Amino acid sequence: MTREILLNAFHMNTVGHQSPGLWAHPRDRSRHYTDLDYWLDLARTLERGLFDGVFLADVLGVYDVYAGTPDAALRHAVQVPINDPLMLVPAMASVTRHLGFGVTCALSYEPPYSFARRMSTLDHLTKGRIGWNIVTGYLASAAKGMGKPDQAGHDVRYDIADDYMEAVYKLWEGSWEDVAVVADKATGVFTDPARVHRVTHDGPFHKVDAIHLCEPSPQRTPVLYQAGASGRGRTFAARHAECVFVNGPSRAVVKPLVGDLRRLAAAAGRAPEDLRIFALATVILGRDEAEAKAKHADYRRHISHEGALALFSGWSGIDFSGYALDDVLRQVRTEAMHSAIDSFTASDPGRRWTVRELAEKVGIGGRSPLMVGSPAQVAEEMLAWVDETGLDGFNLAYVVMPESFEDIVDLLVPELQRRGRYKRAYRPGSLREKLFGQGARLSASHAAARYRRAASTRDPACAIC
Amino acid sequence: MTREILLNAFHMNTVGHQSPGLWAHPRDRSRHYTDLDYWLDLARTLERGLFDGVFLADVLGVYDVYAGTPDAALRHAVQVPINDPLMLVPAMASVTRHLGFGVTCALSYEPPYSFARRMSTLDHLTKGRIGWNIVTGYLASAAKGMGKPDQAGHDVRYDIADDYMEAVYKLWEGSWEDVAVVADKATGVFTDPARVHRVTHDGPFHKVDAIHLCEPSPQRTPVLYQAGASGRGRTFAARHAECVFVNGPSRAVVKPLVGDLRRLAAAAGRAPEDLRIFALATVILGRDEAEAKAKHADYRRHISHEGALALFSGWSGIDFSGYALDDVLRQVRTEAMHSAIDSFTASDPGRRWTVRELAEKVGIGGRSPLMVGSPAQVAEEMLAWVDETGLDGFNLAYVVMPESFEDIVDLLVPELQRRGRYKRAYRPGSLREKLFGQGARLSASHAAARYRRAASTRDPACAIC
Repeated sequence: MTREILLNAFHMNTVGHQSPGLWAHPRDRSRHYTDLDYWLDLARTLERGLFDGVFLADVLGVYDVYAGTPDAALRHAVQVPINDPLMLVPAMASVTRHLGFGVTCALSYEPPYSFARRMSTLDHLTKGRIGWNIVTGYLASAAKGMGKPDQAGHDVRYDIADDYMEAVYKLWEGSWEDVAVVADKATGVFTDPARVHRVTHDGPFHKVDAIHLCEPSPQRTPVLYQAGASGRGRTFAARHAECVFVNGPSRAVVKPLVGDLRRLAAAAGRAPEDLRIFALATVILGRDEAEAKAKHADYRRHISHEGALALFSGWSGIDFSGYALDDVLRQVRTEAMHSAIDSFTASDPGRRWTVRELAEKVGIGGRSPLMVGSPAQVAEEMLAWVDETGLDGFNLAYVVMPESFEDIVDLLVPELQRRGRYKRAYRPGSLREKLFGQGARLSASHAAARYRRAASTRDPACAIC
Repeated sequence: MTREILLNAFHMNTVGHQSPGLWAHPRDRSRHYTDLDYWLDLARTLERGLFDGVFLADVLGVYDVYAGTPDAALRHAVQVPINDPLMLVPAMASVTRHLGFGVTCALSYEPPYSFARRMSTLDHLTKGRIGWNIVTGYLASAAKGMGKPDQAGHDVRYDIADDYMEAVYKLWEGSWEDVAVVADKATGVFTDPARVHRVTHDGPFHKVDAIHLCEPSPQRTPVLYQAGASGRGRTFAARHAECVFVNGPSRAVVKPLVGDLRRLAAAAGRAPEDLRIFALATVILGRDEAEAKAKHADYRRHISHEGALALFSGWSGIDFSGYALDDVLRQVRTEAMHSAIDSFTASDPGRRWTVRELAEKVGIGGRSPLMVGSPAQVAEEMLAWVDETGLDGFNLAYVVMPESFEDIVDLLVPELQRRGRYKRAYRPGSLREKLFGQGARLSASHAAARYRRAASTRDPACAIC
């Protein structure tokens, strides 16, 4: 196989995203996340490295499972404080021409009508470079912030999401015909009203009765990202997502996930290759292996064990605050801990892990592969992952900002290019065109396509007229 | 009086904001509102002219009172299509250092928790240059878009808004102490958790139970703008607003509005001069009077009568689609039309207006003063307004983009500076410091100040701990 691999930079509008404690590394600049220049510099670096996109994660709540308070998360800047990711996009777009933007927005708390406008606005301003990572939210603390006693149950959240998607598809795809905007200065007609259609959506969870407020943007529907790992999440992804994030410690774990997603997409009437599948990965590069290993050892000294356990407690729902760092996991773990810990340690099932070792695994790399080595070594490992598992590329976490991304751009990208496995220039066009090599609009086999309007007249019997 | 006057540019993320039809003027570029460059150029022009701020209006709905459909608004691009205004701020901030941003956000449809984060994010990214125009929404079409049968009643909307303000004040002012963020790389402590406090708000309309997600931004609470003209609206403004917009056709109408607002602020325990009051105005400038008048005549030829009536129908709630352009208003108007039309024509009470003339008044200038002349003439009229009414400055609408603002910067600003009535350089600091000459934070007499935390300990009896 000689497919080119895709690279996303994984980030968050916060201090410590995936590497708790590393903000305190002498060369780390992530404390400057409140400055526009920090993000403009990152955007320029990524575009220099021909990154396909920057993926901005988000969480609208705090990690407060550890000891039942947000204190550890606060102390170690574990995804708190955290600012709104969407606000970074217009500024980063203004200094780039090709870089894509995938942004996490939880759909649980915002009506489809105003959200659809926000994303259309970003699609216009970026000239078709916006993507949306669909999440339903997973922290109880977010629900409480939003004034609700708790979040809806897991599967119900996906039912709500299916309904939401239908509403936004109608707004994005079905309200304005391609030719609605005339903008003819001679006649004074800006929009032909006969080609703008009212959306009426009367779903179980969401209602809309309005025209979409925005004229058609380059992509209309943003490129859709999803990361649901549960069965229900994968079914949702197979129906809606164009890009899917997976996360697993080994090729043996990831390969069946990839196969399953492509199979589910086919079952949903799509082509298996309609999905771009990215695995989370962390790479630490040196000019040679020794330099990379020294860098890794240096980074490890800055891991915050308490911060890592606060993060892992939030992800797993298990409070790790009662254990000593030297406790052995096999002894301390309850039945409930099995799946969470196994998902991290599956690559090495026989090993006896201490709580400290778990924290250090979470601290750099987490549940994803950690690739440490020379550019050639890391390139080989990445390509082996892609070729063996059927992945399309990686979502690359940083350890130290911006060093991790600068190393990738300066050391790894040229190595991948030499091997003919990474582009040497961007393709023209929107993010969707760059990723899929076809048009700017969603493919005809996607669930949203049925909300498109072929006719140019208002049909009183039409569900979305 | 020799106070310097304040200038805001009035705009909207749309094609036709206040001058229906003028998008079709040969020199107008507002069709390019979907391009970032259009906004970056505007930001640079305004900062060159030392504008205090750009004020981005918004309306989350369409004007569909005219003939009971949005067709006329669509045809003439009357505030539709309309994109999200907030998305413009980060990009415009990235090319300016001083320009302030006042952005309209309706509070009716977004929980305080996520909205507070969004504004804190913008306050960080702009380094303290964000303002928020508090609106409750006024279009029934917006409510329907959001899935509600109709909007809440007028006064209830202000009760909801009072409750909302209390919730966001608690988040902005009371959750993080000034010294909460330590960011000490040596100890590895980012935030001192003892100095971050959970907000519990259990109001009649809004609930929050969470810490604010953002560390303190330069201004914490954004500069608060309000434009409520009703009695209930003015009471709300006197309590909450720092900047108030007023709108009236003559000094005689505006002067008592200004006096009333300052009196109400004093009654709410604030200093009358704690309010900065701006009047909407439209200016058309030439190098001399003849050139200005010729420009005005040229602009007038591009007014869309139908577009203007669609706009006025939306504002007034009266459907003007049934009248001929040459009908005389005194004959056609019903009792219900009186106040709406009077608010436009009060400067000339004896006159017989035709529907056409009303449309042309709405088309350029609207209910606000229209000042046409040489730089000296317009400067004199502006200063007479300010000195006679007690206004602090103007919110300047454009007729042709960007020509209207370029004329102001190139012709009017130097004239005002020569008269010693306009700054020659920006003050340092945040938007609030620039506007009020004091600190970056809300003044101690403001309603939000009571939510500030002096103590650094968690008090179980404290309402916002």
